[in-house]
Amino acid sequence: MVKITEVSLRDGHQSLLATRMRTEDMTDAAKIFDEIGFHSVEVWGGATYDTCLRYLKEDPFERLATFKSIFQKTPLQMLLRGQNLVGYRHYADDVVREFIRLSSEAGIDIYRIFDALNDIRNLKVSVEEVKKQGKHAQCAISYTISPVHTVQNYVKLAKDMVKLGADSICIKDMAGLLTPYGAHELIKALKEEIEVPLQLHAHSTAGFAFATHLKAVEAGVDIIDLANSALAEGTSHPCTQSMVATLKDTEYDTGLDLKKMEEAAEILKEKRKKYKKFESEYNRIDTRVLINQIPGGMISNMANQLKEQGALEKMDEVLEEVPRVRKDFGYPPLVTPSSQIVGTQATLNVLLGQRYKSITTETRNYIKGLYGKPPAPIDPELKKLVLSEEEPITCRPADLLPPELPKAREESRDFAKSDTDVISYAIFGQVAKQYMIERNEGNLQPEPLLTFEEMEAGERLSDEFNVTVHGETYDIKIEGVGHKTQDVRPFFIRVDGELKEVFVENNEDIESAANEQTTPKKAKKGKLPKASLKGHVTAPMPGNLTKLNVKVGDSVKKGDTIAIVEAMKMENEVHAPVDGVVEEIYAKEGMQVNPDDALMLIKE
Amino acid sequence: MVKITEVSLRDGHQSLLATRMRTEDMTDAAKIFDEIGFHSVEVWGGATYDTCLRYLKEDPFERLATFKSIFQKTPLQMLLRGQNLVGYRHYADDVVREFIRLSSEAGIDIYRIFDALNDIRNLKVSVEEVKKQGKHAQCAISYTISPVHTVQNYVKLAKDMVKLGADSICIKDMAGLLTPYGAHELIKALKEEIEVPLQLHAHSTAGFAFATHLKAVEAGVDIIDLANSALAEGTSHPCTQSMVATLKDTEYDTGLDLKKMEEAAEILKEKRKKYKKFESEYNRIDTRVLINQIPGGMISNMANQLKEQGALEKMDEVLEEVPRVRKDFGYPPLVTPSSQIVGTQATLNVLLGQRYKSITTETRNYIKGLYGKPPAPIDPELKKLVLSEEEPITCRPADLLPPELPKAREESRDFAKSDTDVISYAIFGQVAKQYMIERNEGNLQPEPLLTFEEMEAGERLSDEFNVTVHGETYDIKIEGVGHKTQDVRPFFIRVDGELKEVFVENNEDIESAANEQTTPKKAKKGKLPKASLKGHVTAPMPGNLTKLNVKVGDSVKKGDTIAIVEAMKMENEVHAPVDGVVEEIYAKEGMQVNPDDALMLIKE
Repeated sequence: MVKITEVSLRDGHQSLLATRMRTEDMTDAAKIFDEIGFHSVEVWGGATYDTCLRYLKEDPFERLATFKSIFQKTPLQMLLRGQNLVGYRHYADDVVREFIRLSSEAGIDIYRIFDALNDIRNLKVSVEEVKKQGKHAQCAISYTISPVHTVQNYVKLAKDMVKLGADSICIKDMAGLLTPYGAHELIKALKEEIEVPLQLHAHSTAGFAFATHLKAVEAGVDIIDLANSALAEGTSHPCTQSMVATLKDTEYDTGLDLKKMEEAAEILKEKRKKYKKFESEYNRIDTRVLINQIPGGMISNMANQLKEQGALEKMDEVLEEVPRVRKDFGYPPLVTPSSQIVGTQATLNVLLGQRYKSITTETRNYIKGLYGKPPAPIDPELKKLVLSEEEPITCRPADLLPPELPKAREESRDFAKSDTDVISYAIFGQVAKQYMIERNEGNLQPEPLLTFEEMEAGERLSDEFNVTVHGETYDIKIEGVGHKTQDVRPFFIRVDGELKEVFVENNEDIESAANEQTTPKKAKKGKLPKASLKGHVTAPMPGNLTKLNVKVGDSVKKGDTIAIVEAMKMENEVHAPVDGVVEEIYAKEGMQVNPDDALMLIKE
Repeated sequence: MVKITEVSLRDGHQSLLATRMRTEDMTDAAKIFDEIGFHSVEVWGGATYDTCLRYLKEDPFERLATFKSIFQKTPLQMLLRGQNLVGYRHYADDVVREFIRLSSEAGIDIYRIFDALNDIRNLKVSVEEVKKQGKHAQCAISYTISPVHTVQNYVKLAKDMVKLGADSICIKDMAGLLTPYGAHELIKALKEEIEVPLQLHAHSTAGFAFATHLKAVEAGVDIIDLANSALAEGTSHPCTQSMVATLKDTEYDTGLDLKKMEEAAEILKEKRKKYKKFESEYNRIDTRVLINQIPGGMISNMANQLKEQGALEKMDEVLEEVPRVRKDFGYPPLVTPSSQIVGTQATLNVLLGQRYKSITTETRNYIKGLYGKPPAPIDPELKKLVLSEEEPITCRPADLLPPELPKAREESRDFAKSDTDVISYAIFGQVAKQYMIERNEGNLQPEPLLTFEEMEAGERLSDEFNVTVHGETYDIKIEGVGHKTQDVRPFFIRVDGELKEVFVENNEDIESAANEQTTPKKAKKGKLPKASLKGHVTAPMPGNLTKLNVKVGDSVKKGDTIAIVEAMKMENEVHAPVDGVVEEIYAKEGMQVNPDDALMLIKE
């Protein structure tokens, strides 16, 4: 008998609907799920936590409490990013322990803990604390393909995880790389060598994950991750019902009730319609990863970076550069954050016409060892180029972090109302603070769902309609749409029977300009001046200016961090190019910035 | 080594985009496909033919010629509905032979021939003629699940097909019912008993088809049907690239070039965007069929019928009635047209509160044997109820059909320009005639693709924009959308900074009324009077009135066929309820009609 973890309430909508599903839209299906007899339901994780605070304006701990009250019979499972917890950087051990204490008190029964580099030192404190709380600690292997990622090495890694205290092992295949026969071989080898239960988690992105799971079952896997049909397939997971039907009357029969699953599917399918604006063709099957093991999402990111630089024709060069950079980096699995670090560095290497001419802050930190130990040694020449005489750290990265909880408690005193508030602030900083302030003011405003687009999706607006303005009614019929030229698109509209040509211009520029009233001359229409003078400060990569550390008149020293640009979930520092005084600032926090934009002017 | 038939250019876009892809959007990918070394490419079939004439205004034979010129190395394959050819009824043998002669001259190399009931008499003439033309005749088994559809019976059927002359056998699983282990057992049994190559065609609808294909490969299947990733999965087929990657370096290795497939995928993905309006949530995975073997599309059809009658709450009763009707009918596979016949009869049985109180024309014809021989005997009581003393036919249905080609040639003399024109007319009648007349007049107008919706999808229209009418520019911002009440929806629009409430009303009624100018009093706003008088003629089911056989003043006898209502691809006769004279006609050809509408009044 094979056991199933139902993942639609976490990874299902995370993979297909940008994690946007609200608690209220999941509870009815959850009640049915609890009757089915799943091994566990996955309901919480990093993206869930972030999205709750940032967009849905839900307290993630309240969501957890709601699920705990519904799931009386089924263990609750979460995905934990090891020392990164539910965030994007390493947190100090006191934060890790406190987070696990609070989440386990709130109802998490099974923690799936992984590290992007498979550095088990980054799992250590989490595993310890989960076990201390009397919960189930599952260690997950980030699956990838490379010359050093052999079956033998995976078996060794799994054994190390068991030694660390893992109650079970999971193969976590984020990119959908694990082929059916690959899974069969790997699971067979693992089952021969380890005693604890073995679970498989593979995304359907590359089209064969259902068969991968089936072959894993044949090879003896104990538990598999599946998603209800309403939120299955594409970039999500193989479908629960399909597998239950497949295994029926075999030695692997799950014994679970298909009809109940279908009832839940009908509910979730209806709810999914509310989130139509998050649907995307990018959530469908994508087999690009099969060519060179570069995940489709990463290819799209790099394509966007190239497009912003007007260099999309270099895409093939970048795709060839990625495996070289990955080799130099010691073959990290291409998963957040290493996929972004490798992808951006490869793109820069091609764009600048010279490998490693520019090194991103994240590359530097990676090579310093601040993310952990790569699977294979870093290329010695690259290490020398980046670190000069400096040596990489050899300790567990979090050993360098002083306790963070006291400071977080202190800083959040005015708006945090509970221990869970404090931990949210400790992990998500500004985002959590804003949520709590709005909550305390009774002013939470979830991102709206009812948009023009959704209304269209629901009941299609006819292309002929009446418009009544101040009591007068006009009969309008859209007859045709012309091709867009220079930001203007002609529409042919019949008003009361008379054909008129109407030009619709996109107002993005005007809108941006309205937001830039404080610097209208320099940032007219939201555009920054092109960097042209010595002392002009530019961004290291295209991204969002999230922080300005200086104001006009401030003195700065060459190398000071004067701003932060966030790109692909990474914070990249902007350094002062010279010693001097900030003469003028063109950019504002929140703006999109490009490497040829001048953000400010520093006078020597 | 497993061989692959690439089906994206026929069944791929048929399953996902309502068969709407135009020839011009397929040629670039086709050129790449021809370099890959597929066993064959499927490019033609019934829906293709129909859609070309009806919507795309393409000559299907021109499409075939285009593909033939591109595919220099790869055999072209088509799907043939046995005696139904590419249409919806049995055609006379002369039409069958002429169609096969012409299509084989035009380039079809492999014919996949199936019958919905697996009555091989309905395949006989097609197989004979294909072989006479020196082409490959593949016989396909319509796969279903029932007490009489045992592995043993399938093997017997396959053997009968080989005796009939089949050059190869295909398992055709339209509904996605064939589970991985079911496929393994069936293929193994077939491979032991038959010598000719064995092919598998299964839709991904129920979520396990990729594994079904893989298990079929392990059981020794020779050829599998797959679709390029750009048009794979959901109601389409497992993905070609995923399977090629899965089988790489195994004994089944296809040896085909993934990179070329990916190039084709990039092209087809771009083209697919043009057809966004045909995308639908109904093309995603749908596991409802796993509960009771009723395909999801059939469930949706029945739900629509119930909804039209305001009786959606009876859905569960209908779902329970379907298996009973299917049993009474001798377990036909639930595929067009039997799925519609069974579905509509089951719906009527529930709606009218009494089983078989009303018998549809199609049910009557089915029980008469006009579709062929059902897999098991028809329930004797039902047979007696429907046919009274009449006996079902025992011959091959087409034996009753006189030659149809001479008449088609005669009738099409004025607009048909070639033998292929005549055959199109012989099969598609009015639809083909209209196409040819428009073509001859140089007036072909394909269904438009560039719509408001698609433009939105491509480059999203901002919800703030300028509208310039006659030189004056207004700054418009859509601020909000209210809830629709009584066909009116309030919008809140800011025009030059001033907030206005604007009511948009859907104009469907007004539009319909405009089309009904000849009968404005009776069919105001496209609505027919409710049947209330004796002599009012009603439709047998909700559908489209495709033909009126009478005009005002005509004498009719009770039982005369006075009109045809097309519903779910079936023509249903409307019979005169009394002897009399047509006093008044309310309905027009082309209208949507419901069973409680009065179509006309007959005075006794």
